Amino acid sequence: MAGRHFGEIEGIEEGALFATREDLSAADVHRPLQAGISGSQGEGSDSIVVSGGYEDDEDFGDLIVYTGHGGRDANTGEQIEDQAFARGNAALARNKALGLPVRVIRGSQLDSPFAPEHGYRYDGLYFVDEFWEETGRSGYKVWRYRLQKNLIASQPALKPGAEPPTRVERRQVTTTRIVRDTQLSIRVKQIYDYCCQVCGIRLDTPAGPYAEGAHIKPLGVPHDGPDHGSNILCLCPNHHVLFDDGAIALTDELEVLGLDMRRKLTTKHEINFEYIRYHREHFGVLIK
Amino acid sequence: MAGRHFGEIEGIEEGALFATREDLSAADVHRPLQAGISGSQGEGSDSIVVSGGYEDDEDFGDLIVYTGHGGRDANTGEQIEDQAFARGNAALARNKALGLPVRVIRGSQLDSPFAPEHGYRYDGLYFVDEFWEETGRSGYKVWRYRLQKNLIASQPALKPGAEPPTRVERRQVTTTRIVRDTQLSIRVKQIYDYCCQVCGIRLDTPAGPYAEGAHIKPLGVPHDGPDHGSNILCLCPNHHVLFDDGAIALTDELEVLGLDMRRKLTTKHEINFEYIRYHREHFGVLIK
Repeated sequence: MAGRHFGEIEGIEEGALFATREDLSAADVHRPLQAGISGSQGEGSDSIVVSGGYEDDEDFGDLIVYTGHGGRDANTGEQIEDQAFARGNAALARNKALGLPVRVIRGSQLDSPFAPEHGYRYDGLYFVDEFWEETGRSGYKVWRYRLQKNLIASQPALKPGAEPPTRVERRQVTTTRIVRDTQLSIRVKQIYDYCCQVCGIRLDTPAGPYAEGAHIKPLGVPHDGPDHGSNILCLCPNHHVLFDDGAIALTDELEVLGLDMRRKLTTKHEINFEYIRYHREHFGVLIK
Repeated sequence: MAGRHFGEIEGIEEGALFATREDLSAADVHRPLQAGISGSQGEGSDSIVVSGGYEDDEDFGDLIVYTGHGGRDANTGEQIEDQAFARGNAALARNKALGLPVRVIRGSQLDSPFAPEHGYRYDGLYFVDEFWEETGRSGYKVWRYRLQKNLIASQPALKPGAEPPTRVERRQVTTTRIVRDTQLSIRVKQIYDYCCQVCGIRLDTPAGPYAEGAHIKPLGVPHDGPDHGSNILCLCPNHHVLFDDGAIALTDELEVLGLDMRRKLTTKHEINFEYIRYHREHFGVLIK
């Protein structure tokens, strides 16, 4: 992890201005002096600069459709070949699989009503909620990322100037299922190489392996379970749903209750049995 | 579905006041005149009244820890036996599996700083993000529901008066994976009896069967896929992740690309091949 820091930088408020890329780098807000994407394929991307380098970028404020890097002529800046799914482009996709936020910095060169007048502005944390390839304006393939500032249960974002939702659309309430994820749970998932502790399945995606960190005793009110490794399991999404909804639970011997077959949880890290019991006695009470 | 309406009621703004339960019922905001939970086990709960009937309710404003119904003496209102997981209690749990919002109405009898002074107030849509059983203050078992007004990527909620997060905690950014769900996708899931169209798996939980409605061409900017049945698949969470992240895609013959084995999508409703192609050519380009 060599010091790559995801999330806010202490002492840097949203809206903070920086005159130059050097200043951004010195403040650890965006370390690379040239690259628009900071990060690596394995870790994800910790920050990006949106500064108008790519003609395909679209800026809606809390929603940005960002273009990956590469494929441009070093002298003219024109797109001369397809972008590869590598380096920064793969890093930014990894954020989606890991649920990691990326710091977004807007530059004054950006052709957008949200661009700062001068220099660079730190604009907060965004989440990568989609990535895909398409043919850009240049005719070459580019990678694209949908970045959202707030992941709220809401209607899908509307294009500026689009008609407001009709009554019929308002009735189709868009709802969400939320899976929490934390830096700590990423470490637990690494221990299991992203294999589910219940079934052993690992979901391999172009953005890297995917699993979910499941808190055994839930975080927050009223359970106040800790965000600690001993309170986290590495599960596939299916077993995460079953665990959270009380369809499966664990005995003190770590046998999985609620499955058709007898199966023990795979364990390679220490789990606190107090949390296992809390989950079983609160969430697992309907298992026959 | 006999007219049970989930979500907002046209013409009723958040904050609307009602003098009596009769008025609430006449406005379709909360139909039952006595029961605190409106709904059925199959459909979920469309509305609840939080009015201080249960001593275990906890009100934090945008977060409510709500107590299920039943087990009380009809005359004294005291808890005299364990609550069953049935009727309204099962209905409210179903909301979690279906991703359905519930209208929340607060009554003036509620012992909370968020209660209205008189009568009843419609306080907007909440989501059930957890349900469990615990021993209430009475010593009897009660069902409990964590209701959240806004599902935002954020720190777990803090108890009022709790210490603000320390620097270490702030670094553990809590992130989310969001799965959209709509009334329309519930209808598609019903067609498949909640079995995944890729693998046939159905997740059975105490809250009923669980599957996810996956939009083939994504909703919102910049894809603008429609919220229409022909653009929705019924998938288990694992195959939903794989589909959204471009690890699987579909041929025009509905063969599933990206799996170890040859498999065709199960289909019992009409799918628009334009959306299948859009997904494959944008999201599925890295499948070998």
